[in-house]
Amino acid sequence: MTGARVSAAVPIAGRRFVVIGGASLVGSTTADLLLARGAGEVVLFDNFSFGSREAIRHLADDPRVRVFQGDVMRLPDLLAALEAADGVLHLAAMMTISMDRDPWSGLDVNIRGAQNVIEACLVRGVRKLVFASSNAVYGYGPGVAGDLVEDTPFHSAGAPPAAVLYGASKIIGEQLCRQAHRKHGLDYVVLRYSTVYGERQHYRAANALYIVETHDRIKAGLRPRVIGDGAETKHFVYVGDLARANAMAFEAAATDVAVNVSGPEPITTLALVELVCELTGTTLRPEHVEPEAGKVRLTSGGAFRIDHAAAERAIGWRPEVSMREGLRRLLAWRDQGAATVQAAE
Amino acid sequence: MTGARVSAAVPIAGRRFVVIGGASLVGSTTADLLLARGAGEVVLFDNFSFGSREAIRHLADDPRVRVFQGDVMRLPDLLAALEAADGVLHLAAMMTISMDRDPWSGLDVNIRGAQNVIEACLVRGVRKLVFASSNAVYGYGPGVAGDLVEDTPFHSAGAPPAAVLYGASKIIGEQLCRQAHRKHGLDYVVLRYSTVYGERQHYRAANALYIVETHDRIKAGLRPRVIGDGAETKHFVYVGDLARANAMAFEAAATDVAVNVSGPEPITTLALVELVCELTGTTLRPEHVEPEAGKVRLTSGGAFRIDHAAAERAIGWRPEVSMREGLRRLLAWRDQGAATVQAAE
Repeated sequence: MTGARVSAAVPIAGRRFVVIGGASLVGSTTADLLLARGAGEVVLFDNFSFGSREAIRHLADDPRVRVFQGDVMRLPDLLAALEAADGVLHLAAMMTISMDRDPWSGLDVNIRGAQNVIEACLVRGVRKLVFASSNAVYGYGPGVAGDLVEDTPFHSAGAPPAAVLYGASKIIGEQLCRQAHRKHGLDYVVLRYSTVYGERQHYRAANALYIVETHDRIKAGLRPRVIGDGAETKHFVYVGDLARANAMAFEAAATDVAVNVSGPEPITTLALVELVCELTGTTLRPEHVEPEAGKVRLTSGGAFRIDHAAAERAIGWRPEVSMREGLRRLLAWRDQGAATVQAAE
Repeated sequence: MTGARVSAAVPIAGRRFVVIGGASLVGSTTADLLLARGAGEVVLFDNFSFGSREAIRHLADDPRVRVFQGDVMRLPDLLAALEAADGVLHLAAMMTISMDRDPWSGLDVNIRGAQNVIEACLVRGVRKLVFASSNAVYGYGPGVAGDLVEDTPFHSAGAPPAAVLYGASKIIGEQLCRQAHRKHGLDYVVLRYSTVYGERQHYRAANALYIVETHDRIKAGLRPRVIGDGAETKHFVYVGDLARANAMAFEAAATDVAVNVSGPEPITTLALVELVCELTGTTLRPEHVEPEAGKVRLTSGGAFRIDHAAAERAIGWRPEVSMREGLRRLLAWRDQGAATVQAAE
């Protein structure tokens, strides 16, 4: 540890932030918030392989926003983008579905990408890195039960390889942050996101598919599907709450810490699908189906709850948006988007 | 799964084996055994960054042995070495001490290296891969207690970053094997080695340092050192037993399985140091010292035992050499080596 700084707090107003994976659900929402809190500049760094121009179109007119098309696999891109940055939020990663399709690239992006980001932070003297980890660091399967706190171990027995690869890649990213702190004094906060959902929801997160696919089927007049009995737990977090957590991780004095960021309460898959049905006003009822062969679906045997008390202690954060309210906003955004597209055709 | 083969057994006699990391403690001992059992050819693949010509000098006159200087980071090297190979043993890895010094290379070698080996096995139609994993997949710290069986989760809270990186890199290697089996039918056995010791012992394994450093100090007339109270558990396996496990993993019909390979019984650090004292006949008594700052030492809070019953079920293996007998052989080899070096000077 350097010991040179009294506090690792990075206030938002007037500061320069780089959001790596900026053209994403979480990236664009966090950029909104940082700008609303007076950030001097927000650089949206993205390679646009998953991120979309669409997700950041609403930011185009803000003179404080700069889009940097770059790739975490190219250190020179990061060195250029991070010049004079006060805070860096590292979101860019491949999740389980992508990891299943292409573990070679997935491990590159999640591990070498994190190394490059950390390296660039050190070279550029970035004051704080917020690293997006995941509750995937607790793993999958029957062992994942009860209250998941930050020292819960990683369960992998019987889980799909891609899910274990994803979780392990996030464990490695966290440890690279820890090592950079110990060896080079890099201040960082790791936030272990639970499944994110909200406006600008995409189709790449295995768990959030239950929301968007249910909604799609209802709109198509089809019964929504629940794989198996739907009794397994999911714990989501609303994207607006997550954006606040990201901002508060910069603002807090905390460093060298990893905390869970989860919504108010967990939900079962069945209850989630039923809640989407209720919010759409449909009379269609869910049908239970068998899992599709070869498709990665994550199920846990035990009922669990991702505890977020440590986040409140470390960065003063707690979730505010209930699943019902968050889903209402997400569905409203999707209905409006569909209407806009229809009007344009 | 391909379903094309009835059994994943690869008999030794007449077959061609490639040992990746062949110029190592485990590699050279396994090569000895494969040759003794009639292997047609044994290719020792090594980049000689850790492996040594010394470790394989005794094999130089066997016409069935071929040394291939290559690197797991270069796929073309592996493609060349694995041509017509029946079985591949993948040992090449960087351990915790190297991972602490250079996590960038460590993760490359352990993850990209494993990917390259698997890729080469698939391209070359290798019949079976034996992948050297580690009990590091169970992690470190107080959570690691009791009987460690194959579905024990990975504990990382509070462990040194490099140790977690090493363990996670081995978890990833195992999962890459699983995925290659599922997607491409690659037959494999993962052996989770506990700490290896035996003749040709080096200084790169954090746990085995307790043996060689104790022996060095005794020979120098100094009291051997125990860091802390020495009450923490270590579980070793003798290199000759491990070589048998490697050979039996090829010969067995087993595939798509990961099993522990550990010695008959665990030992505490203090008991280990005392046993080395006893075997050397010294009157020097161990002294307890504080850990050196900045040096990676792995300690576990709980007493544990690495269960090897699953290895017996899967590949018919159980350890045969007691810690006392294995240490006696190791110390005899070291004394003889020192005598040889002195005679040559």
